[in-house]
Amino acid sequence: MATLGLVEYDAASAEVRTVYDDIMVTRQTDYVNNFWKALAHDPVTLRRTWESIKQVMAPGALDAVTKELVYLAVSASNQCNYCIASHTAAARRAGMTDAMLFELMAIVGMANESNRLASGYQVEIDERFRS
Amino acid sequence: MATLGLVEYDAASAEVRTVYDDIMVTRQTDYVNNFWKALAHDPVTLRRTWESIKQVMAPGALDAVTKELVYLAVSASNQCNYCIASHTAAARRAGMTDAMLFELMAIVGMANESNRLASGYQVEIDERFRS
Amino acid sequence: MATLGLVEYDAASAEVRTVYDDIMVTRQTDYVNNFWKALAHDPVTLRRTWESIKQVMAPGALDAVTKELVYLAVSASNQCNYCIASHTAAARRAGMTDAMLFELMAIVGMANESNRLASGYQVEIDERFRS
Amino acid sequence: MATLGLVEYDAASAEVRTVYDDIMVTRQTDYVNNFWKALAHDPVTLRRTWESIKQVMAPGALDAVTKELVYLAVSASNQCNYCIASHTAAARRAGMTDAMLFELMAIVGMANESNRLASGYQVEIDERFRS
Amino acid sequence: MATLGLVEYDAASAEVRTVYDDIMVTRQTDYVNNFWKALAHDPVTLRRTWESIKQVMAPGALDAVTKELVYLAVSASNQCNYCIASHTAAARRAGMTDAMLFELMAIVGMANESNRLASGYQVEIDERFRS
Amino acid sequence: MATLGLVEYDAASAEVRTVYDDIMVTRQTDYVNNFWKALAHDPVTLRRTWESIKQVMAPGALDAVTKELVYLAVSASNQCNYCIASHTAAARRAGMTDAMLFELMAIVGMANESNRLASGYQVEIDERFRS
Repeated sequence: MATLGLVEYDAASAEVRTVYDDIMVTRQTDYVNNFWKALAHDPVTLRRTWESIKQVMAPGALDAVTKELVYLAVSASNQCNYCIASHTAAARRAGMTDAMLFELMAIVGMANESNRLASGYQVEIDERFRS
Repeated sequence: MATLGLVEYDAASAEVRTVYDDIMVTRQTDYVNNFWKALAHDPVTLRRTWESIKQVMAPGALDAVTKELVYLAVSASNQCNYCIASHTAAARRAGMTDAMLFELMAIVGMANESNRLASGYQVEIDERFRS
Repeated sequence: MATLGLVEYDAASAEVRTVYDDIMVTRQTDYVNNFWKALAHDPVTLRRTWESIKQVMAPGALDAVTKELVYLAVSASNQCNYCIASHTAAARRAGMTDAMLFELMAIVGMANESNRLASGYQVEIDERFRS
Repeated sequence: MATLGLVEYDAASAEVRTVYDDIMVTRQTDYVNNFWKALAHDPVTLRRTWESIKQVMAPGALDAVTKELVYLAVSASNQCNYCIASHTAAARRAGMTDAMLFELMAIVGMANESNRLASGYQVEIDERFRS
Repeated sequence: MATLGLVEYDAASAEVRTVYDDIMVTRQTDYVNNFWKALAHDPVTLRRTWESIKQVMAPGALDAVTKELVYLAVSASNQCNYCIASHTAAARRAGMTDAMLFELMAIVGMANESNRLASGYQVEIDERFRS
Repeated sequence: MATLGLVEYDAASAEVRTVYDDIMVTRQTDYVNNFWKALAHDPVTLRRTWESIKQVMAPGALDAVTKELVYLAVSASNQCNYCIASHTAAARRAGMTDAMLFELMAIVGMANESNRLASGYQVEIDERFRS
């Protein structure tokens, strides 16, 4: 169970409810996931984290599904179980198909492999890659 | 310098040259970067790694630039300096603009932050995310 | 379950009991947690690890609660579930309030974010920070 | 060199200068370090990251030096070279003595060791640590 | 549960069965573990990953048990719960005794500690180690 | 440069020299590498870390070269540049051939890949691997 438990909507302060409401409106859902309910004991961090993620995940030069793919890729690479579960769901909602998931995980795997080969063999950066 | 130095084309065996040639043809470049030249002392790993990356990075359900973005995201998250340098270059070659780079790095940063908040607060996975 | 199970006090050798006793006396508790019971199959590592942690966690230039906060911060950053659970409890016992936990986790999150931004953008170290 | 180079004050837009000014006022220094100058190509991320760090690092339940110690501990654990260099300087400015640095690094080392022992031996979380 | 569930032998395509059969023959077992059954939704990655692991783990300059020890050491260091569980079993099957496991975990722990001390104190590489 | 610089033998206290002497005798060399010289500002950590590594790396159920291979594997997986450089040298001194290095790095790479595939696909641990 989360360190301090989960703050359900009915038990939440007005300040927390405002964030919950914005999460539900922005994501067009009636569900607030446990991550936010666990953060809600600290309304300052809840608000700051939500505002940051909202800003970062809004479609821009990258579209919504690409952004979710990147989020899932980092979470899988970091082996964060909660984040893998929640962002697999989020990526699917944003349009990730099974075929896209397969290719994503294959890249995450190979990048982790080649990262260690590059570091393990102490490969120096090519002159032309030094920006 | 790389642990065993770099195997330049002129000094390479026929087996290694075949891989180098395929890298250059596949990537439509006349340049083989240091990563491959450092691996070339072990032709078995050179070939296996190249064949794997070639397969994984070929456009499919995800296009070429999305694949490079994911590779760069994982490398940045892992803080692999060589890989960040080489895949920043590769992603640009595949079409990554500065605006895309900005959004990518912003997501990599936020995913790393929220991954630790989720783990640090011991958030349990929502029932609906258990596939 | 732990790879080799847990060595309970009643089943422990004299050598292991000596460590368990010292843990309980040092921490002023009658409880030995699973980490030590899982290590106890290897009394050499049990003793060395305990002696090291005892030395490192003794108040000195940093007081007890600050030391526990740092331990928890590293464990949360590493996403070690066992260590997060046990060191959240230890930090509270040492005086960590909820307000301190909130600020700690907020820093762990931001440090993980900014670490990736610094590495991802290949920021060179400022001349004045080169010691 | 940073991927996109550094944005010096003289070359910065009014928007970026506002952040630089706030950094210098908040930290009571006339120096803006490379991290911010590398981020400044993306003013949105520059502002968001600065506002977040400013909020998170302001003294509260934890004092300034404790906060810097935690930031340095996470950066050392993550092996982010830039962040270790800059936050060693920041922690010293906030009052970290050599004795405090020694104890900090000793804890970072032991936490990383015990994290792997706990995970490597698959130690289950004690019933009493399940919050 | 695995994201897409597990593909059991009876439900597997001929292509997947060929890989399963090769796993069982190579490992001299009648058991295919969940890792492969979870990958099998993506037969391309299943085959590539299996062929790579088969090649990498075949005895050569390093014998079978040494290879399994290294695999387990990396998995413990990465804190991958699934991989720790499955490779503890695999290493034992290959001949790892409890005494070998104890020494392995002790090294994994100390390497993780000293890695952070080296990075945390910004130790420069000795001239003689620059290859 | 190391945060506090390096403590050379001539400038070292008797306490530090005792450790340096033991390092040189144990390793049958007249060279003390930078890691120890950087730690020597904190003689307590210098001694504890050396005594721990000395104990852990002494041949036992695993021989000297296998132990060095594991240490290098963890360091490569963690991407600790200092440790990769120094432990590549140490492993060679202990008998690691190029062929052994190739196989080691290939396993480190594949383990890092399969760790992320197992976590990324949320593979549950097989009943038979639950010890």
